[in-house]
Amino acid sequence: MSVTKQLKGPIVECVPNFSEGRRREVIDTIRNEIDSVLYVKVLDVHSDYDHNRSVITFVGKPAAVAEAGVAAVRAASRLIDLRKHEGVHPRLGAADVIPLTPIRDCDMEDCARLAREVAKRIWNELDIPTYLYAHAAVKKDRIRLEDVRLKGFEQMRSLVLKDKNRRPDFGGPALHPTAGASIVGARDPLIAFNVNLKSRDVGIAKEIAEAIREKNSGLVGLKALGLKLSSGRCVQVSTNITRTDVVSPFRVYELVKEEATKRGVQVACSELVGLMPLCSLIDSVRDAVMFDSFDRSRIIELDL
Amino acid sequence: MSVTKQLKGPIVECVPNFSEGRRREVIDTIRNEIDSVLYVKVLDVHSDYDHNRSVITFVGKPAAVAEAGVAAVRAASRLIDLRKHEGVHPRLGAADVIPLTPIRDCDMEDCARLAREVAKRIWNELDIPTYLYAHAAVKKDRIRLEDVRLKGFEQMRSLVLKDKNRRPDFGGPALHPTAGASIVGARDPLIAFNVNLKSRDVGIAKEIAEAIREKNSGLVGLKALGLKLSSGRCVQVSTNITRTDVVSPFRVYELVKEEATKRGVQVACSELVGLMPLCSLIDSVRDAVMFDSFDRSRIIELDL
Repeated sequence: MSVTKQLKGPIVECVPNFSEGRRREVIDTIRNEIDSVLYVKVLDVHSDYDHNRSVITFVGKPAAVAEAGVAAVRAASRLIDLRKHEGVHPRLGAADVIPLTPIRDCDMEDCARLAREVAKRIWNELDIPTYLYAHAAVKKDRIRLEDVRLKGFEQMRSLVLKDKNRRPDFGGPALHPTAGASIVGARDPLIAFNVNLKSRDVGIAKEIAEAIREKNSGLVGLKALGLKLSSGRCVQVSTNITRTDVVSPFRVYELVKEEATKRGVQVACSELVGLMPLCSLIDSVRDAVMFDSFDRSRIIELDL
Repeated sequence: MSVTKQLKGPIVECVPNFSEGRRREVIDTIRNEIDSVLYVKVLDVHSDYDHNRSVITFVGKPAAVAEAGVAAVRAASRLIDLRKHEGVHPRLGAADVIPLTPIRDCDMEDCARLAREVAKRIWNELDIPTYLYAHAAVKKDRIRLEDVRLKGFEQMRSLVLKDKNRRPDFGGPALHPTAGASIVGARDPLIAFNVNLKSRDVGIAKEIAEAIREKNSGLVGLKALGLKLSSGRCVQVSTNITRTDVVSPFRVYELVKEEATKRGVQVACSELVGLMPLCSLIDSVRDAVMFDSFDRSRIIELDL
């Protein structure tokens, strides 16, 4: 039976990112910690060798999600040592980011409160300092994840000691020596969508990322990084689509492809990290085949 | 509440095509005849000016669907006179094609039996001869719709009198003077998908249709026609995707676009007639953005 039918009342989604994408047993342990909490269900686990990072998607009752979130950070801090961690994706903590999203019968303010509670517990119970971001932020300049994380653990562990403005929201000022700090927040659904290019030149991926992100008059709400994939023969444009209501994965794909073509580079494939909302599926097809009108009522199973 | 929850037991889908796409009141009357039958629900009505044709999608309990089908043919034969009907889409009857598809708790054989029952009633009650096609066919050379319909009403009304092999399965041999004949069958889900091209040259649309259809080593299960749209500045490649399990609308779109580009022609837009299954939505996105792996479990709402 589906989890939404099993559980009455409010449901929250949590998509924590952990700085381990290679050691299967570590990822399984963290996953099992989450899954063992009553009223919580793991929907997806995505591990990436090059990023050396795993993204776990789970849903459940708000209090259970908070419990599972803290349990996951505890397991991650026991098993991951950032001093030995290498990966192409920026990160600040063993449990790097812990975003909460309202799914049913609750709102962003509920999730922001829950996020602050989780952040406080992580410091109190685990001695890991925490930052609040997005809708849970309490400082204006900490709304955007990248403004909190900056260049990550190696830069931030000295910065917090020198610069008062960089201190964690809970605990610190020193970061945890092996687990760094965790960034906890409440946000709208987000799509983590990567496009791999048939090139070994990370400069091209970085150029394309620059060109397509919102900051530089690209797509609204689009964040993008150019990364080198050590395991393959590819470079990657790694994106976050934060305005899933207006930008479809297909539009991002098309734009990356267009920019790549200009530079004589082909797209190899793309990947979705975690899940995406139904509207993005519908919008992608509308954009991809230029439907003059299209919505979910045109899908047999969804209309029945 | 959704119709599948309201109705217990078997559910059948019916997607009749009527030779009227311009007179709103005629289409509304036919739709209302269907909708007035208990345990039946109309999901979609699609009318096309150029085709001068409407496609109504409805679902319900098998006996109710049969009842609504016959009622719709009765209304269509009262309101549509094929001698005065012009449109770019081939047709044999006022109610041209009446396909049945198993949706839940029934199989193709059930739908084939139901189709034969409907076909028999249309002759017995309305004096309109009928043909059986697809899984309901009782003659080997009547499986494919296009082999039954040939060039439509004007050709067939004389052919049935001359050629024994062309006689209807029920009734006839003469076609009904104004309502022609109806073609009733049972089939798998099908996607009616049209791509409009920025060209006034119907020869190009016909060439592309030739190139992409299964018959000529195009896509498996793909049927295609090149049509001229009188109302616009476009020509159309009008397709039926009959193997929705292997060919996505995006692949058809891409192939049409590729063939059009070769001929220096651009795609204007595309349209879905009626509904399509969820798997085709998923497959289109997989094809469109080159996902290395993707299925319905990656969509939040479908996984919850």
